[in-house]
Amino acid sequence: MKLNKSQIGKLDYRFRIRLINSISGPKPACLIGTKSVTKGVNLGIFNSITHIGSNPPLIGFILRPNEKVRRDTYDNILEEKYFTINHVNSSISERSHWTSAKFDSNISEFDVCNLTEEYINNFYAPFVKESHVKIGLKFSEKIKIKSNNTFLIIGEIINIYIDNFLIEDDGTLNLEKCDSLSVGGLNTYYKLKQVSQFPYARVENLPDFT
Amino acid sequence: MKLNKSQIGKLDYRFRIRLINSISGPKPACLIGTKSVTKGVNLGIFNSITHIGSNPPLIGFILRPNEKVRRDTYDNILEEKYFTINHVNSSISERSHWTSAKFDSNISEFDVCNLTEEYINNFYAPFVKESHVKIGLKFSEKIKIKSNNTFLIIGEIINIYIDNFLIEDDGTLNLEKCDSLSVGGLNTYYKLKQVSQFPYARVENLPDFT
Repeated sequence: MKLNKSQIGKLDYRFRIRLINSISGPKPACLIGTKSVTKGVNLGIFNSITHIGSNPPLIGFILRPNEKVRRDTYDNILEEKYFTINHVNSSISERSHWTSAKFDSNISEFDVCNLTEEYINNFYAPFVKESHVKIGLKFSEKIKIKSNNTFLIIGEIINIYIDNFLIEDDGTLNLEKCDSLSVGGLNTYYKLKQVSQFPYARVENLPDFT
Repeated sequence: MKLNKSQIGKLDYRFRIRLINSISGPKPACLIGTKSVTKGVNLGIFNSITHIGSNPPLIGFILRPNEKVRRDTYDNILEEKYFTINHVNSSISERSHWTSAKFDSNISEFDVCNLTEEYINNFYAPFVKESHVKIGLKFSEKIKIKSNNTFLIIGEIINIYIDNFLIEDDGTLNLEKCDSLSVGGLNTYYKLKQVSQFPYARVENLPDFT
């Protein structure tokens, strides 16, 4: 399939959304948990979680605040400043996916999707008990993306909760052992299988590929 | 492992980098190809590629322009406005990984890593011939991230080249068939295996999870 800009624009609307949502490659499947005094708790699945930097430890994600579930997450983070990111694993993938339905604001996705709110060490926002990788973050920056009126929301990692056996000796999280899922497009979930590990690439150690 | 902000700050420097780079979950492994009149061609591996939106079709990625390979990509995109994103598959994962070495500016990573420059329909920037999913983009927006002095670079999708059998009837790219790899942290590569597909989540169709 070869498509130029004009042909992409003429694709069937739903076909185009699925193609463009999947063409950026494997995305992380994560649940973002928030809470607000006025609206209660909220949980939504996101696939735009991105590593922003290690020092300070920052994670970002894209928000389209014109959708209901996104709007609640957006409002809660701006209002209360704290949120959680929780990896989706295969035992909770279906329940996690359904948090994307447009429930009323006063309904907790934890309740209707049968996921368990967990509060650790007085952190304000709810973690997902069933997740194996839980991150607590403090809101750091909201950046407007003019190209399509969305926002990049950035948080600083404040807390990390992971079972020790999921972390390699060098600090790398073993995503296969974590059973962390990847998502393609809007609704296809993939398991990960580790296939290779390469050393830090120094020019003087370059293998002979020719 | 339970870590708070102070404990994260005190971790061994390399351990912390590996942990924080992997904790955001599965990332896409993609090669970004650029070209400039003054510097020639450049190819670099990136794992921060993110879907920004479908209409217009936008993809973004994070650049830390203080590293050599990043600097060339950054300069070339701002100078020439066009770039390519190419999925990494298992047959080119090692060669792709080595594009991250800090080669001199006048050296082409295509040459030293034995990957093939491909020019399609007069698109200015080089595609990677060995990749199964090739995207041509036009620079759209550069956004400063104040939290750590990095940039979010956004491009609009102008061209798509994929074999037909890699796309499902509904438009979704089958990332397992594409053999598109995911990367965890800095150097661990994973294959994907599709495990589930769930319908668009409408409140009225919510399964009974209780």
